[in-house]
Amino acid sequence: MPQGKVESVPQDGLTTRQRRNQPVLAVHTGPGKGKSTAAFGMAMRAWNQGFDIGVFQFVKSAKWKVGEEQTMLALNELHERTGAGGPVEWHKMGQGWSWLRRTDDAEQDHAEAARDGWREIARRLSVEQHRFYVLDEFTYPLKWGWIDVDEVVETLVHRPGNQHVVITGRDAPQALMDAADLVTEMTKVKHPMDAGRKGQRGIEW
Amino acid sequence: MPQGKVESVPQDGLTTRQRRNQPVLAVHTGPGKGKSTAAFGMAMRAWNQGFDIGVFQFVKSAKWKVGEEQTMLALNELHERTGAGGPVEWHKMGQGWSWLRRTDDAEQDHAEAARDGWREIARRLSVEQHRFYVLDEFTYPLKWGWIDVDEVVETLVHRPGNQHVVITGRDAPQALMDAADLVTEMTKVKHPMDAGRKGQRGIEW
Repeated sequence: MPQGKVESVPQDGLTTRQRRNQPVLAVHTGPGKGKSTAAFGMAMRAWNQGFDIGVFQFVKSAKWKVGEEQTMLALNELHERTGAGGPVEWHKMGQGWSWLRRTDDAEQDHAEAARDGWREIARRLSVEQHRFYVLDEFTYPLKWGWIDVDEVVETLVHRPGNQHVVITGRDAPQALMDAADLVTEMTKVKHPMDAGRKGQRGIEW
Repeated sequence: MPQGKVESVPQDGLTTRQRRNQPVLAVHTGPGKGKSTAAFGMAMRAWNQGFDIGVFQFVKSAKWKVGEEQTMLALNELHERTGAGGPVEWHKMGQGWSWLRRTDDAEQDHAEAARDGWREIARRLSVEQHRFYVLDEFTYPLKWGWIDVDEVVETLVHRPGNQHVVITGRDAPQALMDAADLVTEMTKVKHPMDAGRKGQRGIEW
């Protein structure tokens, strides 16, 4: 229940409004559930404000995010039909990034595909294409050395305008967390899979 | 990136499918961000499956959840107009629970209002009114002693059918976590308010 109270007021010469409207870089990390789910929940809020939303899924198999994707695309359709909320684009590495129009996914090199994704995001950030970005499971290509962490941090820190970015995934690199405004760690306390239960429709996807 | 692997298979005589379709009781607790946001992200998935969704907000001021509410109600409208997804109801204690049709909110006793909310939820659980419940910030009336924890746990554990329940809020009582299938603790690592920034449109609400 945040009440809008700040713990300290910085001597940065900015008004509360100027400070409030600074773009946010958020990281959801840790071994628990809810990292991506909370990012998509944030996207719901952004949609309601009419923000242009871009989602980029850095996973090979996208089957676990079908529910969020379908719902966000339903919100995009609602926007196109009625003007409510904002537009939503949803791009998946697992299916060879829509802007590349690749047909043979099997031949794709995963590291190269991840770099393709990041290059496109960096390009979009430079032209302020979206107002709210979800880089889902983006920590993994960073962790695996496929994408250079310093370059990512540099690009994010110097992104122009007022573009919000949420990055999800376990083991976020320290340099990324240092650069972020908001870092939340999701800790697994108890999970149904521990009790031998598999994921189910409407809960896990 | 859950791969559907279970860590152990219980000797409970159930098939994987039977075990998979057990109703889930989830608790999002801890001092970090994302508890409610992840619950509404789960509701997006449930909506996409056509589940009937009931949201119950146990807070006096609802101003911080406007984005999620508007978006979920937009999804409800989309359901009513096109048949996509499922229906969504959104009830707020802060405005005197819609089913009570109270007009003078100022005269309402908060503890009694919280008990009204819980009684209605217990009634709905008993008749299987919804398939997916969000009890947002419900840990607070439990923590403050307004609602009896044992009665809540008893009702939840013995709820009929296949009704999923997600409860959010700090300091979840141990008995509730013991009863839950899924407990995630959100830990605050870093928050913009620490740097003197207040919440902003599209991010905090």
